Amino acid sequence: MARCRELAQRAAGQTAPNPLVGCVVLNQGVVVGEGSHPGAGQPHAEVYALTQAAEKARGATLYVNLEPCNHTGRTPPCTEAVIRAGVSQVVVGMVDPDPRVSGTGIERLRQAGIEVVVGIDEPACQRLNEAFVQRVVHQRPLGLLKYAMTLDGKIAATGGHSAWVTGTPARAAVHQLRATCDAIVVGGNTVRHDNPRLTSHGHGHNPRRVVMSRRLDLPAQAHLWNTAIAPTLVFTTPEADPARHQALVDQGVEVIALPALSPKAVTQHLYDQGCAAVLWECGGQLAAQALCDRVIDKLWAFVAPKLVGGPTAPTPVGELGIRQMDMALTLERTTWRTLGDDLLLQGYLVAPQR
Amino acid sequence: MARCRELAQRAAGQTAPNPLVGCVVLNQGVVVGEGSHPGAGQPHAEVYALTQAAEKARGATLYVNLEPCNHTGRTPPCTEAVIRAGVSQVVVGMVDPDPRVSGTGIERLRQAGIEVVVGIDEPACQRLNEAFVQRVVHQRPLGLLKYAMTLDGKIAATGGHSAWVTGTPARAAVHQLRATCDAIVVGGNTVRHDNPRLTSHGHGHNPRRVVMSRRLDLPAQAHLWNTAIAPTLVFTTPEADPARHQALVDQGVEVIALPALSPKAVTQHLYDQGCAAVLWECGGQLAAQALCDRVIDKLWAFVAPKLVGGPTAPTPVGELGIRQMDMALTLERTTWRTLGDDLLLQGYLVAPQR
Repeated sequence: MARCRELAQRAAGQTAPNPLVGCVVLNQGVVVGEGSHPGAGQPHAEVYALTQAAEKARGATLYVNLEPCNHTGRTPPCTEAVIRAGVSQVVVGMVDPDPRVSGTGIERLRQAGIEVVVGIDEPACQRLNEAFVQRVVHQRPLGLLKYAMTLDGKIAATGGHSAWVTGTPARAAVHQLRATCDAIVVGGNTVRHDNPRLTSHGHGHNPRRVVMSRRLDLPAQAHLWNTAIAPTLVFTTPEADPARHQALVDQGVEVIALPALSPKAVTQHLYDQGCAAVLWECGGQLAAQALCDRVIDKLWAFVAPKLVGGPTAPTPVGELGIRQMDMALTLERTTWRTLGDDLLLQGYLVAPQR
Repeated sequence: MARCRELAQRAAGQTAPNPLVGCVVLNQGVVVGEGSHPGAGQPHAEVYALTQAAEKARGATLYVNLEPCNHTGRTPPCTEAVIRAGVSQVVVGMVDPDPRVSGTGIERLRQAGIEVVVGIDEPACQRLNEAFVQRVVHQRPLGLLKYAMTLDGKIAATGGHSAWVTGTPARAAVHQLRATCDAIVVGGNTVRHDNPRLTSHGHGHNPRRVVMSRRLDLPAQAHLWNTAIAPTLVFTTPEADPARHQALVDQGVEVIALPALSPKAVTQHLYDQGCAAVLWECGGQLAAQALCDRVIDKLWAFVAPKLVGGPTAPTPVGELGIRQMDMALTLERTTWRTLGDDLLLQGYLVAPQR
């Protein structure tokens, strides 16, 4: 099952709105077929693995991290391919949360006389597809907020200088994280002050870059306007200057005017476009708006062992309207690990009212 | 040696300016004597252990975490007691950094025909007495800065509410930390806003509480003025209101006017009074001054998995005059551990110019 996840992970960031799926066919302890789902519209992992196994699939055991589909979408149902191949046992990591599938794939296989084992290594399989699960169950992409701060809570020195808070291993982890996401969102301030590329820097797929800017008061030249590397999408309002709008479009940037520009509206739009994982790499003000809009599910907080001071130095989260410490937003399922000299804390936001 | 450290630790916070010392006498694998140094002016650990061992010390092995003294201070030299007792082997954790002793105790024992083994479990022995070492080597107390912040770097919500950032296990760790220190320093703002007790809450010895207040504009009633629990010392300037000064003295508080009130001057005064470990539990402004004055050596930063937001919410370190991220104060020898839901990061400030 670990090998299935490894195969699945190869297409991280490229399968949305589909899940990450890897499949291994084992005949008498020998791997006779392997495959992963490369992306929406392309064959499923099971098909690749069974094709590779060919006649050796007969009587074999098929491992797959997600329940095989039993419906005809853009490709025919995998269950029929598994049955046709003569597989005698199927080991499933987790049941598909998609209501069109959930449990019916397993039922179909059992009806055909195949022994099905479900829930092997399930927590890891759930984590692998947490963005897909979120889409299917909550009809929203998984929102991730990432920031890097000093041990005294500053994301930049007084005046805004921020290169770099963390060291090379932490920054490489961010590049890898980007490769697993479908979109990265920043605000106009980040474009103006940091002029970021927001790419995976060779660590894999480059997600679309998304900028939120009410008035399009953005630099004429910016790394993000180089859409040869990755597509860029700018959300604005109908009040934005049409000339600036046109200038961006001329550089290949997609510009969308929303009647009410908010993290919620942008998230909804990205969901409609098929995004499963949306990474917010914005400053404190937009991060606070995204948290208030409840579009953030998971936090990636890097903490560097240094002090920069400054009562007015920027901090990672702006105004949340919280006046009492016991009203703070809390995180659950927190984990932490070191990356070089830095620390990465991950956790999920507890959202009682959602 | 671990048992020696355990015995030594019993007197944590009570031995300054003396070190923490524990001693075990072993005769043919059986513990025949144990002791620890309870505090300045009282007998050393070796004397307690040898007295308990009595005749069984003859031919035995004596374990002690710090080199036995060879000079007459308030008590006679331990080396002579060890020689007299007929001990055949001495195992020493670390050489005494005190120039009056360093190496001469070991030499004296060897001259008397005793086998001496040095440097057993040395890193742990050095850590146990890091405050003592700092005093002796740098003629300064060890300065510790402790704060508790949210994962977005705030020590209180906008408006100042801070009860509580961390959970019970982290707060108990602070109480234990206090018990190992000789003084705790806060500023007037902490007294005015939080009215703390700054005691070890039953976790051991209560250190003296120290307040820095330029004008003595402090509350007439405060937990810190209850000196029945622990002594309180207020540092101020000659410009402070004499009536307020007298009112504090009447409540049993010691008030000292310094011509120039600064963390450095206060630290020097506490050193002169024999303090080895000084804990700063102050707000960001005083913490920044203490860092700039270079009286902070070690950081205890608690991080709670919660977000409170607020661009003006208080952060742990005020103005350091740093405008570039690459000029940040860095920490070395950092360690991290969880305490309940919270994380404790410890590290030592890298001080290139010191």
